[in-house]
Amino acid sequence: MSSSLARYFPVLEWGRTYSGRILANDLVAAVIVTIMLIPQSLAYSMLAGLPPVIGLYASMAPLLAYAVFGTSRTLAVGPVAVISLMTAAAASKVATAGSPEYIAAALILAFLSGLILLVMGLLKLGALANLLSHPVISGFITAPGLIIASSQLGHILGIKTSGETLVAIVGSFFRNIGQLNPWTAMVGIPAVAFLFWVRKGLKPLLIKLGLQTRPADLIAKAGPVFAIALTTAAVALFDLAEHGVKIVGTIPTGVPPLTIPLFDPQLWMQLAAPALFLSIIGFVESVSVAKTLAAKRRQRIRPDQELIGLGASNLAAAFTGGYPVTGGFARSVVNFDAGAETPAAGVFTAIGIGLAALTLTPLLYFLPNATLAATIIVAVLSLVNIKAILDVWRYSKSDFAAMMLTIGMTLVAGVEAGVVAGVGLSVLLFLHKASKPHMAIVGLVPGTQHFRNIHRHEVATSPRVLNVRIDESLTFTNAGWLEEAVTDLALKSPDVRDVVLMCSAVNEIDATALESIEALNHRLSSADVRLHLSEVKGPVMDRLKRSHFLEELTGQVFLSQFDALQALSPELLLATSVKRVAPIR
Amino acid sequence: MSSSLARYFPVLEWGRTYSGRILANDLVAAVIVTIMLIPQSLAYSMLAGLPPVIGLYASMAPLLAYAVFGTSRTLAVGPVAVISLMTAAAASKVATAGSPEYIAAALILAFLSGLILLVMGLLKLGALANLLSHPVISGFITAPGLIIASSQLGHILGIKTSGETLVAIVGSFFRNIGQLNPWTAMVGIPAVAFLFWVRKGLKPLLIKLGLQTRPADLIAKAGPVFAIALTTAAVALFDLAEHGVKIVGTIPTGVPPLTIPLFDPQLWMQLAAPALFLSIIGFVESVSVAKTLAAKRRQRIRPDQELIGLGASNLAAAFTGGYPVTGGFARSVVNFDAGAETPAAGVFTAIGIGLAALTLTPLLYFLPNATLAATIIVAVLSLVNIKAILDVWRYSKSDFAAMMLTIGMTLVAGVEAGVVAGVGLSVLLFLHKASKPHMAIVGLVPGTQHFRNIHRHEVATSPRVLNVRIDESLTFTNAGWLEEAVTDLALKSPDVRDVVLMCSAVNEIDATALESIEALNHRLSSADVRLHLSEVKGPVMDRLKRSHFLEELTGQVFLSQFDALQALSPELLLATSVKRVAPIR
Repeated sequence: MSSSLARYFPVLEWGRTYSGRILANDLVAAVIVTIMLIPQSLAYSMLAGLPPVIGLYASMAPLLAYAVFGTSRTLAVGPVAVISLMTAAAASKVATAGSPEYIAAALILAFLSGLILLVMGLLKLGALANLLSHPVISGFITAPGLIIASSQLGHILGIKTSGETLVAIVGSFFRNIGQLNPWTAMVGIPAVAFLFWVRKGLKPLLIKLGLQTRPADLIAKAGPVFAIALTTAAVALFDLAEHGVKIVGTIPTGVPPLTIPLFDPQLWMQLAAPALFLSIIGFVESVSVAKTLAAKRRQRIRPDQELIGLGASNLAAAFTGGYPVTGGFARSVVNFDAGAETPAAGVFTAIGIGLAALTLTPLLYFLPNATLAATIIVAVLSLVNIKAILDVWRYSKSDFAAMMLTIGMTLVAGVEAGVVAGVGLSVLLFLHKASKPHMAIVGLVPGTQHFRNIHRHEVATSPRVLNVRIDESLTFTNAGWLEEAVTDLALKSPDVRDVVLMCSAVNEIDATALESIEALNHRLSSADVRLHLSEVKGPVMDRLKRSHFLEELTGQVFLSQFDALQALSPELLLATSVKRVAPIR
Repeated sequence: MSSSLARYFPVLEWGRTYSGRILANDLVAAVIVTIMLIPQSLAYSMLAGLPPVIGLYASMAPLLAYAVFGTSRTLAVGPVAVISLMTAAAASKVATAGSPEYIAAALILAFLSGLILLVMGLLKLGALANLLSHPVISGFITAPGLIIASSQLGHILGIKTSGETLVAIVGSFFRNIGQLNPWTAMVGIPAVAFLFWVRKGLKPLLIKLGLQTRPADLIAKAGPVFAIALTTAAVALFDLAEHGVKIVGTIPTGVPPLTIPLFDPQLWMQLAAPALFLSIIGFVESVSVAKTLAAKRRQRIRPDQELIGLGASNLAAAFTGGYPVTGGFARSVVNFDAGAETPAAGVFTAIGIGLAALTLTPLLYFLPNATLAATIIVAVLSLVNIKAILDVWRYSKSDFAAMMLTIGMTLVAGVEAGVVAGVGLSVLLFLHKASKPHMAIVGLVPGTQHFRNIHRHEVATSPRVLNVRIDESLTFTNAGWLEEAVTDLALKSPDVRDVVLMCSAVNEIDATALESIEALNHRLSSADVRLHLSEVKGPVMDRLKRSHFLEELTGQVFLSQFDALQALSPELLLATSVKRVAPIR
């Protein structure tokens, strides 16, 4: 009873052994993640076309929900880049960015996504994530990075851009290039440069100045905070907002509001498909991160329960004025590196963000959008991993094709089209490879009752009997090929009078394969060749008995291949001096 | 040279051996098929929302094109029920039924479908048809039958119905039931009853009256012609058109016009997706029929060339005022049974239809639509095969689920949605089954160098070494499962220090599986367990060398499993008295 409760509430498991030492570690990690998460939350909600405060709201209640239901000890949930992009794409189809209807649509997306993930979790569909090949996943993480970076370029320079594809965004960038605001660029370009330098150069510098590796690392991680402080101060001091530099402005102070997602069946129908995509992509991204981190500490995550954890997080977002969330790569790594041991770190982070929302927001009034855009650009470009793409190219051309199709389609037609195309191609290539069943012509190993491939072993065969061993289950993917291949083999040699299919490795014959074997039986019979089966497994035989196949079969079903040989080509026994035995009953 | 020409022009093959005897057989078949095809062509073009004459046009040039390019000797192409339904669904999205724009859209559909099929044929994608499971095919042949029959019910009773789904059609039927025209019903209901009786009762009656089986069969097949003659005469004699009985009216007399499909890129884009679906479904239906008939005479069809044949037929339809065509089930069976031996029968049929178009159409002025509707109802209901559905239910519940989903989605959301849902489900179920690779823990067979499953054979094993034989290629579908399963096996027994993956049956390791094995290596290594590989095939090894895996691998790659044993658990050699041998180089 208690173990089944702990199954659905992992908090009961790690909570039992919670100690002062763990608390201290979790608190340190929470402080660091909070500092990192404040600018990120503001930036990602801007990317989603939402007011900045929504990003803060989405970084509180969802973390509490994940702490109760999630199985990863160190995953940090909240707004992430790809999901923010997809939220913008979906919400802007039904409302204008920033309008109350748009915010309502984002809430509905979080609500539907929460429901979808929860239902998938209860149906134990977590294993579905295994069906996305890694090159496709890597493709739909890389390509949005490029789209997002290009969409933020305008904010850096004060140019208005629009669109959801790389082409559209770059097009609008060049059409509106005349709007370039030099004051904005004077804030934005140094911010980008500084943040890139912080990423690579600050840590080595601090170490050279005498700091230990760990504090140097943590200070470098807080880089965005310096950029925010400096640019906010600059805007305030030099009155840059008067010169056209866009600023964040008033962020409402207070705890997240209680919100009820609007019940509008028509709107729900319109948002259902994007919510489904967003859920699956969020889940796959989150599980990849959680698996990687869990492996480092020899912990395990349970994908089915992860669905429930992320579902609960999104429902929490929907009821507290947020928008869709998932486990993020960068923040989870920071959380892990900073020493977080349990999801309690997430709870403390949520409290930290809450305190910031209550006290710090007035300080962010002059924060320039350009700085937030710079934060996003640097974060998403780190997801574009050219080396990984080259590795796939070297390793497998068909995986590379699926990856490139995903990237290409995402860039020209959006994340959803990219994923559909990439998954579609990898499944098609897999089905294509699966369309030829492994099979071998076998013969008797002299002196034994064993049968082996005639091309690899010295075996005895009869010209009148063709023995074909099938090494795989027969399904719609390979049944057509089997029918053609066996017909060809049998009709090629005019002496063949009997064909025996040795089914020792056949675990299933589906309805399509059944029809193919029936057709094979029919085709062979019209050439006066009988079809037999041997070594059919019990469950397969039970099913065949429920069809009409056994009545139509021109030959017999032998319990063993050796029985088939004794009945159909007894002369081989003499030739190979094997003793006759009673057939298996 | 000549054989490669004959590959693309099968006419060159069968034409060489054409004789007077074959000519006679083909002519007889052509006369019978012509008689059957005239009412069917009119009826199906009505179903497609097109003027009746379009159906006649679509039954001439396409037959000539197929005779040149098709590989089936007896397939009869022309308008068919499902394709007519899909044409109506696609064209009515861009124009009003019967309008010139609507007719232009049907031409474009035929043109695009022709291009798509031709390109698929040149790319040799014929094998794709094998990837549709038979239950799904049977589902998308059954469900449209129900939709079509319900859509024709209104014509039988003089009630106007509309919609593309069963629900919509039945709904409009009951809303408009007040329009019921008793005169129409007096023509329609007896026509349906007569045609059903002809199908089942006429042949036995004629045989009882003393006719031979074959002529009785052929006369029964001509049943629709009697119904047409009788009802047309009744309408003409009793002036029923004045009482609201809808009639065919003037059918233009003459040969098919030369038409050029309208070049309108936007319209083409709108019609491209329906044209693709229509092409695939038409192809699958046609190939199923062609395969069945070819098997009966031990002939072969070539799916890639069939794509070219059907592509040419649709292009021919597009340039001669027709609409999309494919190989039809009923007419092909009649053609076959009537003794057709070569596609020349199709040429003679086209000539027959041409003569009818030139001379008979004035006679069809008073032909009531209700009779055509009756023809359609009886034809399509014969495609609804309840017994086949029950057979699938008995044989395989998962196949049944895919079939029912196809039927259900087709009925409520149209043919395209049905096919997508059915194919999607069957592929998902297949991938799910493929997600667990076959593997076995193996040990040394004493006195040999062979390794066998420890659960099936008496073998020697070392508690420190886990030998896992993988019986399948490793791809994204099963890699995640392998990683979990091997980790569990290795960490379950605390004594295990080495894991050897025996890769003798692994033909491929894709990029996703490579990452999983890397993760496995990493996870085992953090538990102080080394990972080794053995018996890696050449091509797989070549690829691994192009990755970083071999540098990271904690253990070794052994050429044989026995080498691995000698290196890792030499004590087993003593225990089983096997002689040490030099490792394979």
